[in-house]
Amino acid sequence: MGSHLIGEYLIERLRGLGARHVFGIPGDYVLGFYDLLQKRGLQTVNTCDEQGAGFAADAYARVRGLGVVCVTYCVGGLKIANTTAQAFAEKSPVVVISGAPGAHEWEKNPLLHHKVREFDTQKRVFEQLTVASTVLNDSQTALQEIDRVLHAALRYKKPVYIELPRDMVSVAGLANYKPSELHEKSDPISLRHSIDEAVEMINKAKRPAILADVELHRFGLQSELVKLMQKSNIPAATTIMGKSVIGENDPLYLGVYGGLMGREEVRRYIEQSDCLLMLGVFMTDIDQGIRTARLDPANCISATSEKLSIRYHHFDNVRFKDFLRALVKSPIQRRALAKIPHPPAMPPFKAAAKKKMTVKRLFQRLNSFLREDTIVISDVGDALFGAAELNIHQHTEFLGTAYYASMGFALPAAVGAQMADPARRPLVLVGDGAFLMTGLELATIARNNLNPIIIVLNNKGYGTERHIHDGPYNDVAPLNYHLLPGIVGKGIGFSVKTEDEFEQALEASEKHKDSFSLIEVHLEPLDRSPALHRLARSLADRL
Amino acid sequence: MGSHLIGEYLIERLRGLGARHVFGIPGDYVLGFYDLLQKRGLQTVNTCDEQGAGFAADAYARVRGLGVVCVTYCVGGLKIANTTAQAFAEKSPVVVISGAPGAHEWEKNPLLHHKVREFDTQKRVFEQLTVASTVLNDSQTALQEIDRVLHAALRYKKPVYIELPRDMVSVAGLANYKPSELHEKSDPISLRHSIDEAVEMINKAKRPAILADVELHRFGLQSELVKLMQKSNIPAATTIMGKSVIGENDPLYLGVYGGLMGREEVRRYIEQSDCLLMLGVFMTDIDQGIRTARLDPANCISATSEKLSIRYHHFDNVRFKDFLRALVKSPIQRRALAKIPHPPAMPPFKAAAKKKMTVKRLFQRLNSFLREDTIVISDVGDALFGAAELNIHQHTEFLGTAYYASMGFALPAAVGAQMADPARRPLVLVGDGAFLMTGLELATIARNNLNPIIIVLNNKGYGTERHIHDGPYNDVAPLNYHLLPGIVGKGIGFSVKTEDEFEQALEASEKHKDSFSLIEVHLEPLDRSPALHRLARSLADRL
Repeated sequence: MGSHLIGEYLIERLRGLGARHVFGIPGDYVLGFYDLLQKRGLQTVNTCDEQGAGFAADAYARVRGLGVVCVTYCVGGLKIANTTAQAFAEKSPVVVISGAPGAHEWEKNPLLHHKVREFDTQKRVFEQLTVASTVLNDSQTALQEIDRVLHAALRYKKPVYIELPRDMVSVAGLANYKPSELHEKSDPISLRHSIDEAVEMINKAKRPAILADVELHRFGLQSELVKLMQKSNIPAATTIMGKSVIGENDPLYLGVYGGLMGREEVRRYIEQSDCLLMLGVFMTDIDQGIRTARLDPANCISATSEKLSIRYHHFDNVRFKDFLRALVKSPIQRRALAKIPHPPAMPPFKAAAKKKMTVKRLFQRLNSFLREDTIVISDVGDALFGAAELNIHQHTEFLGTAYYASMGFALPAAVGAQMADPARRPLVLVGDGAFLMTGLELATIARNNLNPIIIVLNNKGYGTERHIHDGPYNDVAPLNYHLLPGIVGKGIGFSVKTEDEFEQALEASEKHKDSFSLIEVHLEPLDRSPALHRLARSLADRL
Repeated sequence: MGSHLIGEYLIERLRGLGARHVFGIPGDYVLGFYDLLQKRGLQTVNTCDEQGAGFAADAYARVRGLGVVCVTYCVGGLKIANTTAQAFAEKSPVVVISGAPGAHEWEKNPLLHHKVREFDTQKRVFEQLTVASTVLNDSQTALQEIDRVLHAALRYKKPVYIELPRDMVSVAGLANYKPSELHEKSDPISLRHSIDEAVEMINKAKRPAILADVELHRFGLQSELVKLMQKSNIPAATTIMGKSVIGENDPLYLGVYGGLMGREEVRRYIEQSDCLLMLGVFMTDIDQGIRTARLDPANCISATSEKLSIRYHHFDNVRFKDFLRALVKSPIQRRALAKIPHPPAMPPFKAAAKKKMTVKRLFQRLNSFLREDTIVISDVGDALFGAAELNIHQHTEFLGTAYYASMGFALPAAVGAQMADPARRPLVLVGDGAFLMTGLELATIARNNLNPIIIVLNNKGYGTERHIHDGPYNDVAPLNYHLLPGIVGKGIGFSVKTEDEFEQALEASEKHKDSFSLIEVHLEPLDRSPALHRLARSLADRL
């Protein structure tokens, strides 16, 4: 490459990494860059609020490998502190780009509009929420800084922050700068030693098992996992965050491991394994059913992007990807198929006329509604806990914020997910409390001709909290959900109370492909999934 | 007071400082405290999203002197980073209370749900956005910390952050702790010297003038200002942030001083004054019409809560309040009434049948619609710029985010403002772009039986930005606004295109007092107020 303007270089790199859309809301400190985005082939997608853009970019990153959100200084940027924190906590590589006052405007430190305390207040906030950050205020280092920060996003699958002062967009970067590529290699000796030890431990074990988590998805290693399972006949469970990493009809699939939330026999199988291969696992308290894990390090091999541990020691400089690939090629013995507890088949569903809908029946019905091209997107609460038991197909995707658990994710995530992969139709599961937070993004869905099927689990309040500690603060404002299509001028709406009404609404929604469909399902305030039943008791104990 | 539980003491202090409502959304880390709030007489008000709660608390603080927003850890707290930044930038004393994991849960640093990076990540973020912050994890210092932080909020009229680990709510604080009161006194000698010098300078001046800004409002010094003007016959202008500090029919009122946004003759009068008394003034670039102020320090006396300056020197330890009160009692000479440029009377409005609405005519009509008990709440853009020219009555309040300029403020602010002072009826002015950000808070308005009159200036996009640099990213999703009352089950809605339709909608809204009224006014995308016309050219130059 020859000489580059800073703004153009940034766009070129983002395109090179697979981004085709940028989510956000323009403002005067970033208008020039918005213009350039348009001209250079990155489609800008306005959401209603910046929060929606942050969630959309997160979902886009989960589906496509990199997401971009572009906002203005402070009034835009600080609105996505929470969505960036979620991307950090759940390992989603989101690039946050913020406009800023021009480098020359900083000089006299005047009270420029949108400023909070100091000019670098926003930068300081994002340093807490990202894995790398930079302010592109030096033309001699700007291109290199862009590469450094984008590499960090890819290396750690975490969000990064790029602040672009408005007078730097069209400034030339270092002449003849050579873009650096992300090449980080494992130390071959450490890699060999770690593989040797792991293979020996696995081959000696009587009942080895795999626990698969979110990083397999983030690093695109699902097929390596399948190869490893097929080669060795070792069965595998996933965490909730890792759900959909394995096709759930795989004969070696155990189910979700999640302490109180998962099934008891999966918990036993995993915790009693004499050699547990943990792949990309970050155990959270929700994974553990809000209690201490009972995994004995003496039996564990744990590989993540950050660390490789076998029993009580660690190996430096071994990449997660390299370790897993080497393991697939290693002399792991193929063993006889073990007798494992398969996930129970959901019973076939037949709608009962006039029978009131329940959470349990809702998910039983949805289980057979999933198709290979469905992407299930769950918001926090029983929308997630119930979905944990859905039987995800080989190519079905599942997005949920199962660790950070920020409400309001699902609806804007549908925008990001469907733009990242237009071949998939999102099935959005969202409670009434979460819908109120970002529900106007329906207008974004309508405007961009997206067609998710949105199911609002209306239990008239913050359902999970009712089971922990109830009070009037757990009630939420009611909406006439089925009328919302009339507000945004597109879509079809249903208000459903019984099983046969739900059946009809689902069938109509499946056929209606031109625009979104919104099905409000009335549920009793205290109705809940079996998983929430188990979880809530534990949460309440901690209050 | 005897012995106190930490949570109870906090509530008692907030009540003592005038708070009666707490805005927010509960979560499991803060459910116990929510329960206590209910029991101890602070009404909890759920908004749809935490962002709405942050804006509502800000408006509540501006009207009532202190606002409280209470949220859960990270997923709640980080959603109000932006609203807290606004409160900081615009000097609004908002107390942010966040739940957190219990002190004992921190010990093993597990991946508790909602955690971002470290346990203190949220605290670190809020240190950037508040004037004082604390984590109440030590029972021996907790009560004192509560006092320290609340005093800072009152002293500086800025937001503060209190993190309350869930297992500390019901822990006893230091026995027999004596609450400290906020008593900060001026140094009497410094005060006397500064007053002597100021009086001499004012009395010698040929054409003294006052510039009044937001701190007069925040410290409740409006009547002191009026006394000073009446005593001395010195005329006064206000900044936009300070609008409504002076009744605009006051014969000594010059109008809004705001560079390009204000009237030229006000600018001249203020900038040519040979003794300008600046009271509580924080000059921003919007106040200055996005250009350097031409105020000569040699002619200025500037008093704020942070600093007292006369010409080129400063006085330490002189409180803003004490200085103004002493000035009122000082031997300032009463001078003859100067000939000053009064704000032009808005022409009487007569609706023209079938004539299309324009921004200019909208504000002309609204000018005569204001009543003494109206509180005007303007969102960013022409909703604000147009409102700058409204003739505010003696007791009319005006709320707008004229410096930080965060969109989406007005609608949730109406919730906070009307709860802070139920005797006032909010007149909300909001653009379509801003409405999309927080519009679902209509459900909060409906649920709490509030009755603002909401005027949506629908110019089909980010109107201000169109005049700076236009592109498809300035278009926003359309809504059928007048149907929104049907969604929330209350209120009346109008869609208005002509002057007579607007007239009818306003009259019907005034009569309809039971619930809110929403009037969508269709405007041409490039129509704008005279103030925006002047401002936009200057903004575009900076792009």
